[in-house]
Amino acid sequence: MSHEEHKAKAPKKFKFAVITVSDTASLGKREDLSGYYIIEELRKEGNDNVYYAVVPDEKLKIIKAVIEALEKADVVITTGGTGITRRDITIEALRPLFDKELVGFGEIFRLKSYEEVGTAAVLSRATAGIIRDKESKVVFCLPGSLNAVKTALEIIKREAYHILKHARE
Amino acid sequence: MSHEEHKAKAPKKFKFAVITVSDTASLGKREDLSGYYIIEELRKEGNDNVYYAVVPDEKLKIIKAVIEALEKADVVITTGGTGITRRDITIEALRPLFDKELVGFGEIFRLKSYEEVGTAAVLSRATAGIIRDKESKVVFCLPGSLNAVKTALEIIKREAYHILKHARE
Amino acid sequence: MSHEEHKAKAPKKFKFAVITVSDTASLGKREDLSGYYIIEELRKEGNDNVYYAVVPDEKLKIIKAVIEALEKADVVITTGGTGITRRDITIEALRPLFDKELVGFGEIFRLKSYEEVGTAAVLSRATAGIIRDKESKVVFCLPGSLNAVKTALEIIKREAYHILKHARE
Amino acid sequence: MSHEEHKAKAPKKFKFAVITVSDTASLGKREDLSGYYIIEELRKEGNDNVYYAVVPDEKLKIIKAVIEALEKADVVITTGGTGITRRDITIEALRPLFDKELVGFGEIFRLKSYEEVGTAAVLSRATAGIIRDKESKVVFCLPGSLNAVKTALEIIKREAYHILKHARE
Amino acid sequence: MSHEEHKAKAPKKFKFAVITVSDTASLGKREDLSGYYIIEELRKEGNDNVYYAVVPDEKLKIIKAVIEALEKADVVITTGGTGITRRDITIEALRPLFDKELVGFGEIFRLKSYEEVGTAAVLSRATAGIIRDKESKVVFCLPGSLNAVKTALEIIKREAYHILKHARE
Amino acid sequence: MSHEEHKAKAPKKFKFAVITVSDTASLGKREDLSGYYIIEELRKEGNDNVYYAVVPDEKLKIIKAVIEALEKADVVITTGGTGITRRDITIEALRPLFDKELVGFGEIFRLKSYEEVGTAAVLSRATAGIIRDKESKVVFCLPGSLNAVKTALEIIKREAYHILKHARE
Ligand SMILES: [Mg+2]
Ligand SMILES: [Mg+2]
Ligand SMILES: [Mg+2]
Ligand SMILES: [Mg+2]
Repeated sequence: MSHEEHKAKAPKKFKFAVITVSDTASLGKREDLSGYYIIEELRKEGNDNVYYAVVPDEKLKIIKAVIEALEKADVVITTGGTGITRRDITIEALRPLFDKELVGFGEIFRLKSYEEVGTAAVLSRATAGIIRDKESKVVFCLPGSLNAVKTALEIIKREAYHILKHARE
Repeated sequence: MSHEEHKAKAPKKFKFAVITVSDTASLGKREDLSGYYIIEELRKEGNDNVYYAVVPDEKLKIIKAVIEALEKADVVITTGGTGITRRDITIEALRPLFDKELVGFGEIFRLKSYEEVGTAAVLSRATAGIIRDKESKVVFCLPGSLNAVKTALEIIKREAYHILKHARE
Repeated sequence: MSHEEHKAKAPKKFKFAVITVSDTASLGKREDLSGYYIIEELRKEGNDNVYYAVVPDEKLKIIKAVIEALEKADVVITTGGTGITRRDITIEALRPLFDKELVGFGEIFRLKSYEEVGTAAVLSRATAGIIRDKESKVVFCLPGSLNAVKTALEIIKREAYHILKHARE
Repeated sequence: MSHEEHKAKAPKKFKFAVITVSDTASLGKREDLSGYYIIEELRKEGNDNVYYAVVPDEKLKIIKAVIEALEKADVVITTGGTGITRRDITIEALRPLFDKELVGFGEIFRLKSYEEVGTAAVLSRATAGIIRDKESKVVFCLPGSLNAVKTALEIIKREAYHILKHARE
Repeated sequence: MSHEEHKAKAPKKFKFAVITVSDTASLGKREDLSGYYIIEELRKEGNDNVYYAVVPDEKLKIIKAVIEALEKADVVITTGGTGITRRDITIEALRPLFDKELVGFGEIFRLKSYEEVGTAAVLSRATAGIIRDKESKVVFCLPGSLNAVKTALEIIKREAYHILKHARE
Repeated sequence: MSHEEHKAKAPKKFKFAVITVSDTASLGKREDLSGYYIIEELRKEGNDNVYYAVVPDEKLKIIKAVIEALEKADVVITTGGTGITRRDITIEALRPLFDKELVGFGEIFRLKSYEEVGTAAVLSRATAGIIRDKESKVVFCLPGSLNAVKTALEIIKREAYHILKHARE
């Protein structure tokens, strides 16, 4: 079975969660454009948004939201907190939950960013990982900026099915 | 100020949570004697039990319960899941949340166990750690057996105030 | 001495091992096309295949095969077990043996994969590392699929000499 | 069921391996008194010695011997290489294979050593761990000196059954 | 504010340190062409060189030089010791000092190297990280070769302001 | 050769450094009683104090002082910063420099503390480690309190020779 056929047979829909990690958004001081964008784009393709939360850049609140999201969703997408400011803590919070880190996700994301914004791509620490609960799930940790989210979502839209399918083999 | 005076001046009460980690207790198949014992003993001394939960030996459920407990309590005590069976996962679940591990707690606990049950003390991986959220909190990870809990509680009753006080300096 | 001259003077041959990591291949349920391909391609260039084994996706069996291979070979190539299924354990088994991980190998491999198969490149966790025994050796951990092996082998054919030479400086 | 009854019902015999880690013993320059002692003592109690090897203080040779031992034995005991000389590497070699480290074993061993030799107990890094292959096994890493081995064996004779039994629950 | 405006408003100058890590250069056996190049290039753009040292490939000497550099500089650049020879130890020395590793720096550096020298890019383990002292600083760990330094400096010249600015938010 | 003879033949003197880690002492706000005590006690036995510094509870300053001390001394003793307050960072600063951690030092120290002050012993994270530079050295990380220093020094006075001797084998 070729690579293309393989993907063609993958289940076409998944349940997803969006967690926006941002001090300002959690205080209602700005609209969550990145979060809305993710929900809208994934819904357009028939996927089901089953969880949405906005949390501040606090380790325990981030972990708790992801665990709650995993109770309902197969794919969890966080946006925000992957940079290098003092408050950015999303990667540090979630990496210990990963059974396997998908280092290639961050690499390909930064490769695509590099093509779009040049060397500023180095500023993002975006990554992804597989979490094994009763069933395997995937968590993507995206930057907060809308442009970065758009770039990352191109990868997620193409590969989320594929990743879930393999992780559950 | 002497060591004794130092402790005499420490705040006398704290808010505590008890989380029993056990597949069988979470299914209601056995009474949670260890959990009840902890609650009763700490209440006797005037401490306030603000959270109680029974969760199965599952990593994400344990982490979530501890985070919820930390929203209310200063001292979190888990009982169960610190041994070496396939399902025992409490230490692995909680250690990544610790800002500082209190290795001495496990050591002194096992020293006391050794005095009581001899070399069987080697079977326990009990430990404790400081978690820094807005305020510092302490989490103790105790074995599930009532005897072990009794031994550990002697340490906790004497030192929990002290640990909290230092951790918040 | 230029980069090109540098490589021109490197020793032209090396002893290599191939270890196929696959439950199904180890049971004889499928031919080991990827393993055969690696052996054939590296032999064509005059290298000497000194070890070949097929092992299931089991941590201890993988480690043991790599240690046996290192007793004879300078370059060890594993194929299989670098993905994200529950059984994939090759990276977890071998990373603790590495004295230095060659993170760039996985990155460049996924960059080339991305050019060939697009974003599906994110699914592979392929990597490589230097192991220091009496002499330094290099271990490459490739995916199991023949296409991925072909992509990775382009890098290995060009750089294995080079890597060994540097690692032994 | 009490602690005493619990142990009384534990299976009474196990298959054990002894691996002596020592440059000099591996060259035949000295008799392996510690290894012989362990074998003799455990056999006296009816246990079955199924593997014995003497290896130098080399990481890969130590790991390979332990994996071979685990193919036959339930309990693996290494002696040597747990100190602080430049060549001592047993702990570093074996810790990455542990699914769960039994930190209490090293603690209780050093506590008993302290009672016997005083503060010189601090020089040993002896430890133990559970390795999960198809079945769970236990590995004890003892010092090389005969006195230390005698001290450690008192713990092992009492608890090896117990540890195996729990690890397999 | 667009990405371009954002960078346009970033502070235009920074204080930088250069630390050449090389056994031969530290013995005065070769000129430090890479170190001089970095100083010259960054000075041309108006940045201020406040620290320069040449140290051998020794872990403690490297760490000490970086700490001294951080007392004066905002941006620390090391050159040398990022490869795979036995003596290469710069990454191992400095990674434990990082509060956040900038994995994207190594990735984009190797991507650019790949475009220039092909698959030989896999040989470099170059990376960067944020160190939080009273203020946040950034440390870049570059290879020793002049060509590699030129490639890396293109990224540093464009992004060092940007990185510092974010790290201090 | 017996254990007692062994120690009798160990070199009788060593060069030692004392580093007091304390925000208040570094500001001259209090006398460094613990530091003075260590120097006086070790000198009494004929050892040579070759380095003394008082540094605040700051990671980089602690590391730098230890590296400077290692340039002159065989035995480095830090006092302070091993507890659980927010500022305590000595263990976190120095552990990455250790080639081998002497976990038994902390254990025996806390065992002795337990005999003296009871369960308050759990509050200390004191430890020690071997650092391999050109020659092997040992670093002891003691608490700041004079009583704890007295307890720890009993171990150090008896075992420092012994540890150095073994570490240099
Ligand atoms: Mg943010
Ligand atoms: Mg497979
Ligand atoms: Mg030895
Ligand atoms: Mg202090």
